[in-house]
Amino acid sequence: MISDLKLHKEKIIKVDNGNLFHFIKQDSSGYHEFGECYFSEVKYKKIKGWKKHNIMKMNLAVPYGRVRIVFYDDRYKNNQGIFQEIFLSPSEYYRVSVPPQIWFAFQGLNDPTSLLVNLSNIKHDPDEVSKCNLENIKFEW
Amino acid sequence: MISDLKLHKEKIIKVDNGNLFHFIKQDSSGYHEFGECYFSEVKYKKIKGWKKHNIMKMNLAVPYGRVRIVFYDDRYKNNQGIFQEIFLSPSEYYRVSVPPQIWFAFQGLNDPTSLLVNLSNIKHDPDEVSKCNLENIKFEW
Repeated sequence: MISDLKLHKEKIIKVDNGNLFHFIKQDSSGYHEFGECYFSEVKYKKIKGWKKHNIMKMNLAVPYGRVRIVFYDDRYKNNQGIFQEIFLSPSEYYRVSVPPQIWFAFQGLNDPTSLLVNLSNIKHDPDEVSKCNLENIKFEW
Repeated sequence: MISDLKLHKEKIIKVDNGNLFHFIKQDSSGYHEFGECYFSEVKYKKIKGWKKHNIMKMNLAVPYGRVRIVFYDDRYKNNQGIFQEIFLSPSEYYRVSVPPQIWFAFQGLNDPTSLLVNLSNIKHDPDEVSKCNLENIKFEW
């Protein structure tokens, strides 16, 4: 487990005509500042990644579909890296607070698509993002 | 048209494994402060509403499914109220900035469900919300 990657159980309010899913509030643990909020679709069986934010703190959830997210922490150079795998969906409903400098990649498990939301403390900035090919961090998908 | 209800065309970045949908940034027009972000599911053909926020400023979008939102503005008592109807989906992709004191209700047009996101300037507070039954504001759904 990556010690500063936090899973928060968020409330689902049951409503007859459609449920309400809490995501994040100004006083939520893991909320810092508001930079940006965006959605990333991921097609069935496809994988997006690897990517690493060097500055951005992310808050992630999956309000539609089902997504497998794999985090890879290689911050401590004296250790081997640590993998952590999390499955998110409206019925496995968590917000995940992700510190900077953690690699991540994610796979769509719902046909035809799933939706990952990120609310981050800074706006998208290509200069703070590192990328690497999927095969360069070995994980058994 | 309700003059201070604003539609913002947000970018969709085309990506092979799934598109990226911009929603809102700290310097977006219509962004005020960060209070809360939550998701409201709405089942096919069902209607949620009417509801009115007396203080909250909302920013709405539909990242999954298709939703018909009807706004009803009765702020100017010397006029009859004004209705405004908007259809939102990932292919009719807009962010809608909604001032306080506008009634709204919304209907799911995707089977089995659609997803409306709200990013608001204050946290949910039942004391600032007014509600009324669907039949009390006459609209031809």
